[in-house]
Amino acid sequence: MRNVRLLIAYDGSRFFGWQRQEGFGSVQQAVEEGLESLLGDRVVVHGAGRTDTGVHALGQVASCHVDTSLDDQRLCHALNAHLDEGVVVRRVETCPDDFHARFSATGKRYLYLTVTTPFRPPFAEGQFHWTREPLDQAAMRDAASRFLGQRDFAALASSGSPRTSTVRTVEHVRLVARRDRFAIVVQGNGFLYNMVRTIAGTLIDVGRGRLVPSDVDAILASGDRRRAGATAPAGGLWLLRVRYPERCFTGRLAGPRGAAGLFQG
Amino acid sequence: MRNVRLLIAYDGSRFFGWQRQEGFGSVQQAVEEGLESLLGDRVVVHGAGRTDTGVHALGQVASCHVDTSLDDQRLCHALNAHLDEGVVVRRVETCPDDFHARFSATGKRYLYLTVTTPFRPPFAEGQFHWTREPLDQAAMRDAASRFLGQRDFAALASSGSPRTSTVRTVEHVRLVARRDRFAIVVQGNGFLYNMVRTIAGTLIDVGRGRLVPSDVDAILASGDRRRAGATAPAGGLWLLRVRYPERCFTGRLAGPRGAAGLFQG
Repeated sequence: MRNVRLLIAYDGSRFFGWQRQEGFGSVQQAVEEGLESLLGDRVVVHGAGRTDTGVHALGQVASCHVDTSLDDQRLCHALNAHLDEGVVVRRVETCPDDFHARFSATGKRYLYLTVTTPFRPPFAEGQFHWTREPLDQAAMRDAASRFLGQRDFAALASSGSPRTSTVRTVEHVRLVARRDRFAIVVQGNGFLYNMVRTIAGTLIDVGRGRLVPSDVDAILASGDRRRAGATAPAGGLWLLRVRYPERCFTGRLAGPRGAAGLFQG
Repeated sequence: MRNVRLLIAYDGSRFFGWQRQEGFGSVQQAVEEGLESLLGDRVVVHGAGRTDTGVHALGQVASCHVDTSLDDQRLCHALNAHLDEGVVVRRVETCPDDFHARFSATGKRYLYLTVTTPFRPPFAEGQFHWTREPLDQAAMRDAASRFLGQRDFAALASSGSPRTSTVRTVEHVRLVARRDRFAIVVQGNGFLYNMVRTIAGTLIDVGRGRLVPSDVDAILASGDRRRAGATAPAGGLWLLRVRYPERCFTGRLAGPRGAAGLFQG
């Protein structure tokens, strides 16, 4: 048995989220069934984070113990042949036995993608959020800077899951605009439930003029979820990268770039 | 009654092609029903060309006579509110009474989009053609130049529709490569049935080493469809632009750029 980590991309619109649940096809289930079909053993796959239904990933990470003589590259190729459309394993890497995709993670980077066109684009529905109105970038950049640092983000978290602390560190909130496309890149050491989508929704509300940048300070200070902007729709959210203490998946990566490619080079 | 031309984008994977046919939802039907729902009259819409099931458009053109007091911009906005997802009218423009989207057209430009990654990308299925193998760009450029000029393209046309001549002029075949994406832009004064997809399929076969560039000369000289490469799948084909003697749809265009955006800027 060896411990491996998988770099996984998926189209969130095809799955009921990452986490396995009875009666709803999840990414975790797809990967576990792919491994079982390939290796003949039941394998439990641990994901770095649970993404909701509709949320996409270019760089989800999962770890699992496997018993196979296939080397990492052959295991990756063979596993993809056993996966459904909509999910692909970009890389398999043997890792220290104590590596755990969730507990070893020290941060995550997400991208929230908005397209602003006069009409709803006919393509790639569910891969971005659409707003008819142009967005005020200067105001959004001002607002974005107000999320940075170690803070209590209780005002940005949907209630639901119990948790010990609502303090997190947001390391950067960067805005990338290109023609009619608008990406919000958020990186932090961890996020509360729906926190990235609430940051995105609040910034979009600032861009539309429904909120002003200083409202962000008041929202965070209040700790009151009802004061923040709307939770932006799941389809615009992409999990780009999970960070670990050691470098993972180095070198040229196989596989898709997807929406993020629109904002590079 | 005035004559208007429409600039239309659509996701071909959602329709059974452009042309109206009983029992299968087509783009023509969607636009005609949208106009009827908006204006209360049955309107016949003439498209510049029939695209097959799965073929996308960023710049399809259609013309029709309408009886409405709405100006062009308001008509465009109102019509979009009556259209299904997957199709959008980017622009409406009043035009001379003798303008006909099909008969007035003097040329078309298509893009054929291929993604070469080790694994099938999980996103945007049906919006590009995927090949696992890297493509030999130098060989493809050599082969591309051999399609240029006024020639008999009988070897590249699927049989089916009767026609008086198989001579057409291909004005340019340009290759644009960017990371793992590969676009073939083909422009000509007109195309036989499946001709662009056969040019694309032949070039991809050259890129894979299944054909050599000089095979293009032999294929064209033979007039024999069986000698050309495979007809590339419909999902990779995008109708970018229809050309007319006068300038149409000038100024900044509303609406989506879609796949073509990946190859600009």
